[in-house]
Amino acid sequence: MKRIKCEIMYDGSRFSGYQSQPKDRTVQRELEKALWKIHKKVPVKTHASGRTDAGVHAMGQVVHFDTPITMLAERWARALNGELPSDISVKRTEEVSEKFHARYSVSGKEYRYRIYRTRYRDPFRTVYAYHYPYPLDVSRMKEAAAYLMGEHDFTSFCSTKSDKENKVRTVTDISFFEQGDDLEIRFKGTGFLYNMVRIMVGTLMKVGNGRLEPEDVARILAQRDRNRAPQTAPAEGLYLWEVFYE
Amino acid sequence: MKRIKCEIMYDGSRFSGYQSQPKDRTVQRELEKALWKIHKKVPVKTHASGRTDAGVHAMGQVVHFDTPITMLAERWARALNGELPSDISVKRTEEVSEKFHARYSVSGKEYRYRIYRTRYRDPFRTVYAYHYPYPLDVSRMKEAAAYLMGEHDFTSFCSTKSDKENKVRTVTDISFFEQGDDLEIRFKGTGFLYNMVRIMVGTLMKVGNGRLEPEDVARILAQRDRNRAPQTAPAEGLYLWEVFYE
Repeated sequence: MKRIKCEIMYDGSRFSGYQSQPKDRTVQRELEKALWKIHKKVPVKTHASGRTDAGVHAMGQVVHFDTPITMLAERWARALNGELPSDISVKRTEEVSEKFHARYSVSGKEYRYRIYRTRYRDPFRTVYAYHYPYPLDVSRMKEAAAYLMGEHDFTSFCSTKSDKENKVRTVTDISFFEQGDDLEIRFKGTGFLYNMVRIMVGTLMKVGNGRLEPEDVARILAQRDRNRAPQTAPAEGLYLWEVFYE
Repeated sequence: MKRIKCEIMYDGSRFSGYQSQPKDRTVQRELEKALWKIHKKVPVKTHASGRTDAGVHAMGQVVHFDTPITMLAERWARALNGELPSDISVKRTEEVSEKFHARYSVSGKEYRYRIYRTRYRDPFRTVYAYHYPYPLDVSRMKEAAAYLMGEHDFTSFCSTKSDKENKVRTVTDISFFEQGDDLEIRFKGTGFLYNMVRIMVGTLMKVGNGRLEPEDVARILAQRDRNRAPQTAPAEGLYLWEVFYE
């Protein structure tokens, strides 16, 4: 058996998320359907770096699978792209040792969140960024973001649906990129809890629009209570940008 | 009655084209449904600068309608955007004289056609540009484009489904913009026949990939026969960019 690591991208707008669920169209189901065809109707299990929710996009999701097929590792990208629907694409494939695991070997991740601020909704961005046509003070958002960086217990920034015991994570960087109407917030960290990026974005936006003070973020973190943090920002602005391995 | 001119944009990927047809989801139907709601269930007829096919996008389609409602003309954009689905947006509205007609007053149009040349299909561009992963010699395409500029009988570049008698049109400019993997071809002219831009693009691409010579374009034009010109390029790359009025 050979272990193949795949770097994939997908437009999340027509998927019910990454992970397979009965009946729903998911990224995992489409990937495993493509592998099933290539393996002459033998099921092949895939493992991803983590799930993404319905509507969330990926530029660099990482998945691995084991195969008995002998094929140059880089050929797998072409073989899979030949079977996949047009909203998923395999960017790169490579052979890895059996010690590599797409989920357990992760050392860090980068997520990006896109907001656009035109007066009216843009049909070409509607499922690719969050439309927010109100003023945002980005310098206040940067001040607030400083409180989120470093190692913290992120219970206040984690969906109550999470089953993770340990909610301590390290956010290594939060940076802001503005270009015209677009605002992109980039988050790097050793790991992220369920909905953590979207709750951080919802909180930063409340600081940006003046309904919270930057210092309130420290208080919300310290309270370790999801009910203290503002609403989760919508899925359409979120991109799993890159997964890092040692 | 007041005549309102609207500049609209739409993502054509989920529409069966601009013009209303029984049962299909079209841009015109969605616009007239929004107007019907605003006019308390009285039907309002819209007139566009021209149709666009299924899958074709618009950044600056122009539409007019007549209304008995008294409202500041620029307010119409907000009222309509409140009722329209997320893949259509009204950019601007203004009151015009009854001599203005979105179709008959047109003095020119600009269309843009987008091609991208990555090795594998990009899920985020799949319905917004034409994926062409083969070499294209853009300098040859520019040479060929020179033969299309000016006043010509464009019978060879018009769908046989067209019911227009007079096939003489003037193309005032064709220009090429390359950035990374992207190639955009911009066409300006006094008017365009049915499928004309997409047949011109199909022809320019055959020159670009070496299967036609630039001079062949002059021959194809002179033959005035649709069967002489190459295939129509796919809808997803085409944008009605701007409509000009005197």
